[in-house]
Order: sequence, then structure tokens, then C-alpha cells
Amino acid sequence: MSVQTKATIASFGGKLLKLSHNASSTNCEMAFNLYLPPQTTTNPLHKVPLLIYLAGLTCTGDNGAEKGFFQHAASEKGIAVLYPDTSPRGLKIQGEDDSFDFGSGAGFYVDATKSPWNKGYKMYSYITSELPKTVFDNFKQVDPERISIFGHSMGGHGALTLFLKNPGKYKSVSAFAPIANPSKCQWGRKAFGGYFGDDEKAKWAEHDATELVKKWAGEPLDVLIDVGTSDNFYKQGQLLPENFVEAAEGKGKVNVRWQDGYDHSYFTMATFADDHVGHAARYLLA
Amino acid sequence: MSVQTKATIASFGGKLLKLSHNASSTNCEMAFNLYLPPQTTTNPLHKVPLLIYLAGLTCTGDNGAEKGFFQHAASEKGIAVLYPDTSPRGLKIQGEDDSFDFGSGAGFYVDATKSPWNKGYKMYSYITSELPKTVFDNFKQVDPERISIFGHSMGGHGALTLFLKNPGKYKSVSAFAPIANPSKCQWGRKAFGGYFGDDEKAKWAEHDATELVKKWAGEPLDVLIDVGTSDNFYKQGQLLPENFVEAAEGKGKVNVRWQDGYDHSYFTMATFADDHVGHAARYLLA
Repeated sequence: MSVQTKATIASFGGKLLKLSHNASSTNCEMAFNLYLPPQTTTNPLHKVPLLIYLAGLTCTGDNGAEKGFFQHAASEKGIAVLYPDTSPRGLKIQGEDDSFDFGSGAGFYVDATKSPWNKGYKMYSYITSELPKTVFDNFKQVDPERISIFGHSMGGHGALTLFLKNPGKYKSVSAFAPIANPSKCQWGRKAFGGYFGDDEKAKWAEHDATELVKKWAGEPLDVLIDVGTSDNFYKQGQLLPENFVEAAEGKGKVNVRWQDGYDHSYFTMATFADDHVGHAARYLLA
Repeated sequence: MSVQTKATIASFGGKLLKLSHNASSTNCEMAFNLYLPPQTTTNPLHKVPLLIYLAGLTCTGDNGAEKGFFQHAASEKGIAVLYPDTSPRGLKIQGEDDSFDFGSGAGFYVDATKSPWNKGYKMYSYITSELPKTVFDNFKQVDPERISIFGHSMGGHGALTLFLKNPGKYKSVSAFAPIANPSKCQWGRKAFGGYFGDDEKAKWAEHDATELVKKWAGEPLDVLIDVGTSDNFYKQGQLLPENFVEAAEGKGKVNVRWQDGYDHSYFTMATFADDHVGHAARYLLA
């Protein structure tokens, strides 16, 4: 698929490309950002690994690129960073723009099965297949054999579930304040009810990190998770990382760092950005 | 003057305080942000120096705090960062919200003399006097004896002029893409004409870095300036750093770094943020 370049912005020695393409899985034009670190220009034959950042509710691909500070370490380590959007846009489905936590900006990284959302709310297919294929087809400097994933909040849910559903596809996973057990929280129940309907046990469990990790049979896990102790959404019970930790027992390492006084914002991510890129780098550059 | 705390946000080990106060110089409530590095909490008796960041056209105190990544180095060095707004707000002067380059968001760090703008467009007094006094009165961890200043675009103009008009007040100055000779560019001529009227030689020259530096009689200068070679506003002749460099001949060091491919955005500032905070740190922590 062809890609349109809307802007090329210098950032930390590399280039942040503002791109878009017509995506068949989501049935609309999708904007995304791709950071190419300096190593891709100094040596055109050098291939760099790819780290995918999945953003949270209400975000686009711009928030992480502007406020996450991920390019800082990605530049140093030589890692490309992909910043996708969080949902299809402008499908003209009734109600798609009515809530911050459902529809536009809230695709939850699932393939909706319930009408009318199944007409384009296919963010699982888009992120696991169509978008990376588009990137690898158009940017030969990016190595399709080395991909890691991380994300924030709804995107932390996305990162954990995509990692757990596809053993071996991603070299590593980490998350900031992930919605770790969506079947048990208000945001997740609304989204899963809307995108899948109420057949809870089957479809919901297939996209719930806490359910998925119970069945994990891959290599021992090494998951980095940061949660701020002043995160209001944690306090509201939207994140439930404890459930994930309990469910992951015996499956490897789940390092939940409780960050004193930190909230749910991009200020938290900027602060610990180097750690998360570094976590990915240990696997991507191994 | 008393200060209202609207939010306290953890950032790079310190605290970003979102504050406001009723300012008499600008005749309205002014929002600002103050970053207190971790050194202020680990040792309450330890005083940290202050670095003032002046933002550009259309900005508030939030842009630098969210996208400049100045906290990254400020945290490490132990420097407080002050992020003021760029103009008074809501004075209900006719036309104040009509342009991006005049009125709201475009105070140009001058004290307007022309009616009706002289009713509150007193950003020079606000930044050099009222705001720092408010900070030092309310935050005893910040040392009033050690202040540096830097800024971007209109704020780069502000940083250079405030530094040059007040020998010894600021320990150092640096700028990203400053409007370095406002009397000679469209933005500056519109602003100075509006705030001062057309008495060019007197008032305009008093707030033009290129004119001011000619008369500099203080310590030899050490000014760091970054300008991107892909900065469209540079290409339009809004910045004119060459004029400043020429005028500063014999006054010390003016290090203009032409950053290849970089533009006028916060991505440029984030990339070189550590260098500018480091430049200030060499003087503030000397």
C-alpha cells in the first residue's frame, strides 16, 4: 500500500515522518507517525528494529510523538518508533463521536464483531498486520524481524494483549498504566460490550490481558509496567494491574513499578520513557 | 502576592506546579507553571537556581512544560524552571484575539505605551519583576540570587532583550530561533507599531536585541542560539540572527548553531533542550 508523507520533522538526530495511507482493515484513511533514528540515514543499508507505541483513549499518533519523549532513547539506541492512531476516523457510524471512551479515539485494539462497528473498527488487524506491512513495504530501513510493542492505558491493554495473543511476534512488551483486566472495569466493559456484544466468556476473554496471561505457554515473561500512585484511573479501578500480576504467577517476571506521586499523564511517560525504550532495546538489539 | 495551586504533577523526579495569581502589572489573572526539581524535596533547606523559559507566539506556559523536555536536564542539574504565559488574557480590549501575532499570546515581553494596550500589556514588567517576586515570595526553595533566561522565537527575543537590558540580573541567556531584530521583520514591526506606535528610534530600539547588543558594556557575552536550517520563519526573514551576530561583534561569544534540517517546532527544542539547560547550568551552578 502506498503511503503519503505529510511532513518530515527533524527530531533527536533522526526524522519524524507524518504519514497516512488508505487502510482496508479500518475502511478509511489512517494517519500515523514513524520515527526513523539517525542510524537509518548515516548508513542506508543498516536496518533498525521497530518499537510500536499504542496510545490511550482520546489520543492520536501525535500525542506520544510530541509528549512521550520516546525519540530521546530511540535515537541513541537506533530504534524506529511507530505511532499509530487509536481508531478509524470519520466512518459516519451513528454515535462514533459521542463518547471519549467508545468509538473515535477508543478502538481498544480489537476487531469489532458487532454491527455497525464491525464495518471498520478492526484495530487488531490494523495494528498486527496491515500497518506494519505498510511500514515494512515502504521503509526498507526497518527490520520486519525485530518488533517490540508498548503502550499507555488503553494502549497498554493493546500492547499486552497483542503480545500475549501472538507468541514470538513481538520481542518484548511494556506498559504505562495499562487497562490490565478490561472485562472487570467500566471502560473495558463498555468497549467490549459495544464491539463484541455480551458474549463475555468467549470474545471478551480473548482480548483481556489478565485472561490471556493465564494461558501463556511461551517463553518466560519479562514485562515492565509503570503505574503512578496518584493515577486517578488506577484509583477508580480502571487499570487493575494487581489482577494481571496474580494471573501471571509462574509465567515469568512481571515488574510493576509503583511510581510515587505520578499520575496518568504524559508527564509520567516522559519521565520513564528511557526505561521503556531501554527495556525494548535489550530484546531488539540482543 | 498569593498564588493558587491548580495542580501538582510529578515530572522527572520533581514537581510541576500549575499555578495562577492576580497580577497587577498585566491587570488580570495569570497562569504559569513552575518546575521544582527533586533536590527541593530531598533537602528542604537546599535552594535551587531559577531558569525562566519564555515561549513564542500563540503559546501559554504549558507548551514548554509539555513538549520542551527541559525538565529532563533541570531535574538532573537541580534547577527550577519557570514557564510564564505570553500575554495578559481576557482584558476585553477590542481586537485582542484577532491575530496570532498581536494581542493575546503575543505580548512580546514589552510594556506597551500606546492606548489601549498600555492597560495591561506590560509583559516586560511582569516577567522582570512581578512574576519572579511572586515565585521567590511563595517558594523559598528557589534562590532569587541565581536566575537565567532563555526562550523560543518571540520568547527568544524576550530572553535576549531582558538579558541585555538588565546587565547582571540574569546569569546567562540562550535562545531557540529568536526574533533577533524585530524592528526589521514583519512580526516585530506589527507588534512594536501596535504596542509603542511609530516612534521607531526611541522605543523600538529599546526592545530590539540587535540594537541593544551594540550598546552592551557588561561582561563579555556567551550566548547560545540554535536555528534550524528548515525553519520557515527564518526563511521568511522573521528571525534575522545574522543581524544580531554582526551587531554583537567584539562583545564576546555568540554561538549560533545552524541545526541541519530542523524546523521552528518544539521537536527542535526537545532535541537540544539538554544543551540549553546545560548552558544555563554552567552559570547558575558555577
